[in-house]
Amino acid sequence: MSVRFDYGNLIEGNVVGGLVAERLSADLADRFVEVRAHFDAQRAEGRLGFPDLPDARDTLDRISAWAATRAGVYDDVVVLGIGGSGLGATAVKEALLGPFWNGRTEAARGGRPRLHVLDNPDPITTSALLEGLEPDRTLFNVVSKSGATAETMAVYLVAREWVEAAVGPDGTRDHFVFTTDPASGALRTIGDAEGIEMFPVPENVGGRFSVLSAVGLVPAALCGIDVEALLNGAARAVQRCETPKLTENPAGLFATLLHFADVDDGRPIHVLMPYCDRLRPVALWFQQLWAESLGKFVPDGSGRSVGPTPVAASGATDQHSVLQLLMEGPHDKVVILMSVDDPGGDVEIPIRHADVPAIAYLGGHTLGGLLETERRATAEALRRAGRPNGTLTLSRVDASTVGELLMLLQIATVYAGAMYGVDPLDQPGVELGKKLTYGLMGREGAERPVMTEPDGRWVV
Amino acid sequence: MSVRFDYGNLIEGNVVGGLVAERLSADLADRFVEVRAHFDAQRAEGRLGFPDLPDARDTLDRISAWAATRAGVYDDVVVLGIGGSGLGATAVKEALLGPFWNGRTEAARGGRPRLHVLDNPDPITTSALLEGLEPDRTLFNVVSKSGATAETMAVYLVAREWVEAAVGPDGTRDHFVFTTDPASGALRTIGDAEGIEMFPVPENVGGRFSVLSAVGLVPAALCGIDVEALLNGAARAVQRCETPKLTENPAGLFATLLHFADVDDGRPIHVLMPYCDRLRPVALWFQQLWAESLGKFVPDGSGRSVGPTPVAASGATDQHSVLQLLMEGPHDKVVILMSVDDPGGDVEIPIRHADVPAIAYLGGHTLGGLLETERRATAEALRRAGRPNGTLTLSRVDASTVGELLMLLQIATVYAGAMYGVDPLDQPGVELGKKLTYGLMGREGAERPVMTEPDGRWVV
Repeated sequence: MSVRFDYGNLIEGNVVGGLVAERLSADLADRFVEVRAHFDAQRAEGRLGFPDLPDARDTLDRISAWAATRAGVYDDVVVLGIGGSGLGATAVKEALLGPFWNGRTEAARGGRPRLHVLDNPDPITTSALLEGLEPDRTLFNVVSKSGATAETMAVYLVAREWVEAAVGPDGTRDHFVFTTDPASGALRTIGDAEGIEMFPVPENVGGRFSVLSAVGLVPAALCGIDVEALLNGAARAVQRCETPKLTENPAGLFATLLHFADVDDGRPIHVLMPYCDRLRPVALWFQQLWAESLGKFVPDGSGRSVGPTPVAASGATDQHSVLQLLMEGPHDKVVILMSVDDPGGDVEIPIRHADVPAIAYLGGHTLGGLLETERRATAEALRRAGRPNGTLTLSRVDASTVGELLMLLQIATVYAGAMYGVDPLDQPGVELGKKLTYGLMGREGAERPVMTEPDGRWVV
Repeated sequence: MSVRFDYGNLIEGNVVGGLVAERLSADLADRFVEVRAHFDAQRAEGRLGFPDLPDARDTLDRISAWAATRAGVYDDVVVLGIGGSGLGATAVKEALLGPFWNGRTEAARGGRPRLHVLDNPDPITTSALLEGLEPDRTLFNVVSKSGATAETMAVYLVAREWVEAAVGPDGTRDHFVFTTDPASGALRTIGDAEGIEMFPVPENVGGRFSVLSAVGLVPAALCGIDVEALLNGAARAVQRCETPKLTENPAGLFATLLHFADVDDGRPIHVLMPYCDRLRPVALWFQQLWAESLGKFVPDGSGRSVGPTPVAASGATDQHSVLQLLMEGPHDKVVILMSVDDPGGDVEIPIRHADVPAIAYLGGHTLGGLLETERRATAEALRRAGRPNGTLTLSRVDASTVGELLMLLQIATVYAGAMYGVDPLDQPGVELGKKLTYGLMGREGAERPVMTEPDGRWVV
């Protein structure tokens, strides 16, 4: 087993545990049977596409084969994508290429390209990035399911002009690859017309559930990540989460306990805190997944709002930051720590300054040992303070385990959607902002909005 | 005025506003007079040191003079610091050196060094960083007020050995600079014994309020940031926040409105969302500042817990993420957007694909214009959804304005501490985890803790 969920500190020694322990084999178990059935039903209806991504071996093969033909062609790959598209690519990159990838020499990268994720139309970021790139050695992976994401398309237009100015119109197509809807949308239209390579985001896979589709696989494959192992790990998660028996289903327990802590025990803030730098972006990816999937109106006409607030943290760093709040602040949080059994390398702390007791004890340990000790100490401290916490542990940070983790959290999100009574696959709340933006930018057919911006009286 | 706070959408069109508007000139104004007086009293007692940092011109001069002698000596500066020490350095670096600083050529950096902040004892991060550095061209800035921060000192020991192996014991001192307590602690002892350059963190300035002390200034000065302007901006914030008149005091309004939204209107989650990549780390810095200062037991014997939960977000990116939750989720949040009047450069979006309406409208705008439009659209959408929000606007992202912003938020934090009835300067909740770590690591005098780790029954 490569990802395990230890929920002992969610059960013992705190309020949630006192409330929930017995019920995991009683009503919550019964309810989970329904949640599981709902998941299968949505899948059977074809609404829920992401659990089938590990089986999409045609796409995998096509991506792998294409990436192989591109080996050595680019020094830099730039993903243009926002939200789940950008966060998923970053999570996979940091976890599996490791820290400072883009700072390494070509030899240290084994000839594989640097990978940048441009997830915001910030002019300074965009121009600074382009300044450091050679257009004839750069590939842009434009990711937009609809092909109309304003931020992504704006930066695409800039990148397009920049490439074309350098390599000429005929060579441009070799510097772009589109990841978009299989049949429609602006990117599809452009790609078809210009013979640009394209990979599909299945119609029933939304942006925030797309990391294991071409959205995540294309940049990963270009950088030599073992995308097959990523999908195999994800397949393992699907399999492990097939059981309707709650106490054997890791995603089921994750969703049940966090939902319970929120709704039945007033703990709506869910902190994900990896003790491993490579997994920091996974916490940010989870933040968007959990927030955008679950934070919404219950569609029962009541106008009732639900949804936990996920917070990404980082251990041990944030022991010198938000931990104070987690230990003593309001009882409105659950903390999920993350650890790694085998960090894949360690660093010995040398024995030095033996005459300085405040330091001397560190010598002879390892940095990895210190980090894991701090994780254990934090879990124990939270427990003693009556603060429910759990730990997700990866045996290693490799493609298979990361694939399993990402899939497990996505499945948990859909389960949680059923528990909250919302559709985890939609995001109606972001439409108004988009509509206002279209109107202000003068998009064809968009109404010019009447902005009721404050008149300036309330400014200091 | 270089930082302004527009709180119109906190006043108009939502519940908070209905409750708070009149009271800003009534009881809340009266109360703020007391909060202001308490701030001055703490300052007079010498407890509260950070507002005096802009006047610490001796330290500034010493840092500037020393940094000048170090120009051209190092290719890489590595800050070893955790919590506020790391986050402050990163906030200043990203804001004022701009994106991809470490990826730029030496010429593009004007001969100034790269700047790394190693804020976690992660073995993979540490070894990957060292692998890319030349010991004889690297300076480590070790930042620990107590000189005993386990994570920082562990990495210091590793770095120390690594440097010494390359340059020999005699040359080692030129590759370290310590930022620590002016009189005591392990770092001070070592530095004194070995003649290592040291700069002080004043005794009455805690880690999370230290960004404008030597903690932030040393790395900034080494990278050629205008540290004098940083302090001048900070001094302006101190001055602007001197007035006891609430509606004229930006930090007072910030603290009052967020505290009110939490305590009187059930909105304990405070989201800071800059629409400017360079300010993303400021939001993370604010997260530790607000959380660690305010999240604690009220010291009245009641055992009552208070404290808002700050969340760092990023616009426009998170419009495709947490915005859904902000728009439709529970009414437990206040969102503070951040914008920049003049981003210091812009990028035109070329006119292309005129036949594709989903894209064509973007041409002729700029990326900066798009970003600001999205900020306005989000503020308006939140307002229409009855979600209170405000905007902090910087005229530019320069040293003076950033100094003002950082000081303003620190002052607001101390005001908020008084409103919540807690001491914003302590952090008793993090001690237990430290104690357990010391015990597990075998530090002299530390008791070996009895860990009540779960027995494995609750694992899946």
